[in-house]
Amino acid sequence: MQPIPRDPCTLLRRMLDAAVAAALPQHCLPGRLPAPGAGRTVVVGAGKASAAMAAVLEQHWPGELSGLVVTRYGHAVPCRRIEIVEASHPLPDAAGRAAAERILALVRGLTADDLVVCLFSGGGSALLTLPAEGVSFEDKQAVNRSLLRSGADIAEMNCVRKHLSRIKGGRLALAAHPARVVSLLISDVPGDDPAVIASGPTVADPSTFAEARDVLAKYAIEASASVVAHLQQASDETPKPGDPRLRRTQTVMLATPEHALSAAARSARDAGVTPVILGDSIEGEAREVARVMAAIARQVVRHGEPTPAPCVLLSGGETTVTVRGNGRGGRNAEFLLALSLALDGEAGVYALAADTDGIDGTEDNAGCIATPSSLAQARALGLDPKAMLQANDGYTFFAALDALVVTGPTLTNVNDFRAILVLPRV
Amino acid sequence: MQPIPRDPCTLLRRMLDAAVAAALPQHCLPGRLPAPGAGRTVVVGAGKASAAMAAVLEQHWPGELSGLVVTRYGHAVPCRRIEIVEASHPLPDAAGRAAAERILALVRGLTADDLVVCLFSGGGSALLTLPAEGVSFEDKQAVNRSLLRSGADIAEMNCVRKHLSRIKGGRLALAAHPARVVSLLISDVPGDDPAVIASGPTVADPSTFAEARDVLAKYAIEASASVVAHLQQASDETPKPGDPRLRRTQTVMLATPEHALSAAARSARDAGVTPVILGDSIEGEAREVARVMAAIARQVVRHGEPTPAPCVLLSGGETTVTVRGNGRGGRNAEFLLALSLALDGEAGVYALAADTDGIDGTEDNAGCIATPSSLAQARALGLDPKAMLQANDGYTFFAALDALVVTGPTLTNVNDFRAILVLPRV
Repeated sequence: MQPIPRDPCTLLRRMLDAAVAAALPQHCLPGRLPAPGAGRTVVVGAGKASAAMAAVLEQHWPGELSGLVVTRYGHAVPCRRIEIVEASHPLPDAAGRAAAERILALVRGLTADDLVVCLFSGGGSALLTLPAEGVSFEDKQAVNRSLLRSGADIAEMNCVRKHLSRIKGGRLALAAHPARVVSLLISDVPGDDPAVIASGPTVADPSTFAEARDVLAKYAIEASASVVAHLQQASDETPKPGDPRLRRTQTVMLATPEHALSAAARSARDAGVTPVILGDSIEGEAREVARVMAAIARQVVRHGEPTPAPCVLLSGGETTVTVRGNGRGGRNAEFLLALSLALDGEAGVYALAADTDGIDGTEDNAGCIATPSSLAQARALGLDPKAMLQANDGYTFFAALDALVVTGPTLTNVNDFRAILVLPRV
Repeated sequence: MQPIPRDPCTLLRRMLDAAVAAALPQHCLPGRLPAPGAGRTVVVGAGKASAAMAAVLEQHWPGELSGLVVTRYGHAVPCRRIEIVEASHPLPDAAGRAAAERILALVRGLTADDLVVCLFSGGGSALLTLPAEGVSFEDKQAVNRSLLRSGADIAEMNCVRKHLSRIKGGRLALAAHPARVVSLLISDVPGDDPAVIASGPTVADPSTFAEARDVLAKYAIEASASVVAHLQQASDETPKPGDPRLRRTQTVMLATPEHALSAAARSARDAGVTPVILGDSIEGEAREVARVMAAIARQVVRHGEPTPAPCVLLSGGETTVTVRGNGRGGRNAEFLLALSLALDGEAGVYALAADTDGIDGTEDNAGCIATPSSLAQARALGLDPKAMLQANDGYTFFAALDALVVTGPTLTNVNDFRAILVLPRV
């Protein structure tokens, strides 16, 4: 038992560490291994955590195994029996495509005695890009870009993506049939739907080619001739729920954003701070989410609601940043700078926001910490906090205050972590 | 004791009614009257609730009184001794200016034995517009419009406004000196600061002419020559905290957004529903606030956090709508349409949002009610909910579903009221 920290920033950092630890493969995987089969065991996977998962798996696996997983550049972990390949994320590259081809080949031709263990985590979708037969990588990417700009919701985008892929939407499981398929998942998506994590390579897909065509029509997306032709086909649908070829597939949820928040809540409770978990999948424009969170923190200060201080408002999920300026920083830095402005130095309120994968956006920090004196400190340094928020320059702001949280890649990913600590007035 | 309603919509409506009732002058004013003085009693005031406050005051006042209050068109209440004037809100007009002139005249020349009772509520600032000597109404309005577009925060805007007014920022109290001045307030502002309600006509103002000039310079606001000349003066400052001429002023907070939320919370508790008050002053773009609230409601559904169902998430404060389309509806309709889209028919989640003054924006409704079937019902009618949100057409959406909440002007105003009811899964 560690001593209870008196310093609010140390306490916040301990909550983040507890959240991340709950999602680390070495903690969440060992007790959840599937039973070995009579035949071969083939391990495949993709995601920011997949190499770390592979390392833990081969360390605890009782028998023979072999396989290949793909992870993000810089996220490899040495393995002895499972091959680790690095590829690009969030924009796919040739290394990822080649790995996806090899993964499909590895699971083909197995028997009903064999077992395929799939290791999927956040980032798996981009790392496992494999366009459908006859569709070029560039054409698929063009459709993807158009979808992102179109206003289509995530279900509509996934419908199209799955129908332009050779591996997603359950097609990996089809390739592995008749082998048994167990997918071990670390979730970074709202609702923890296995069909969404890494675009569900081993999970049935209720959507159809016709629906994919409808999405393109609805948003007037001009796709290449090869994409149009591919989506016209009626055969070779993704496997639907109840498909007998997927009867021997199973998914195991190793870690979720909610698990991470619960771990942080325990850490808070140990320190005598009441945790209030507001949501594991908060979404919205980062600066707007910050204003709402600031108002809730103020409600604690002024009225002791929804619970009296000391308390900590915990939330997960992924905010978005509409880029307006050319500053530096990810969505967590943006959130915290907006939060600081909305709180305007409110005494007793401290906050940490970080990406549990250890990288906030494209910077070198996981997140930052804001204190009641952040604004005053920044102004004393000649910085203009409001102008910096306008410029999306949260990283520069918190770097100047020496308030970055740096962890390096954590080798797991349960999306963002936000904690707003409200201390009683003294 | 009324029976506990089984219908979620009835329950939500009862919470709104409880919130509004807590802020009605007939409930919150009678017990809070000041002691009469030895001399005359003069009643003045401005706001959406001021006429209703005047009527209750003269009904309960033990002695002689006279006076004048200004309220919004359509918000007059018959009074026998206090004159009621109607004027324009939110854009000021000549009727409001004339009333402000008369109010200043009424409180001038009083003695230390006399008592001025001021009745201020939301809307009072626009209804009590009186430009400083030498500044035209049009020039003052032009500065105001520029400020609203500039990105200046509310403190900065109030600093300028108070220094261009003959009545705000404590100047009404100066005019009434040496009489005793008691202000009875109904708050619709975050933090319930008496200096902000109706722009604080009887409250000391720490801000200065120099600061007002700085604000115009900071945001590069081009003001007319008369405005610039007026702000250049060093004499005739607003009264500062500690000013002896304000020693005999007093403010009494009759009702606040928090009082209203607490009343709704009691109503929920009576029905066996746990209230969770998230904030009395939630601000932000309505559709973004809706996404955060939807995520919190989902957390209740999925994880029983921050508290298990049945519960109701209560909040107050004022969201904003960035107008993109030419549809109909106020911010509460916009909030509820965005909430419905974010919840996507989530079972067991019902919501009401309304302006406690009884008018959401410029329509005839106070607010609306959203249910798990709102989206489906609308689609069955051939409506496109997403497109209607894009067009800011929330009123049309909920009108088509017969889901408007219509109260008429309530004659009080404690800002918006939002309640999201989450029922257990059956």
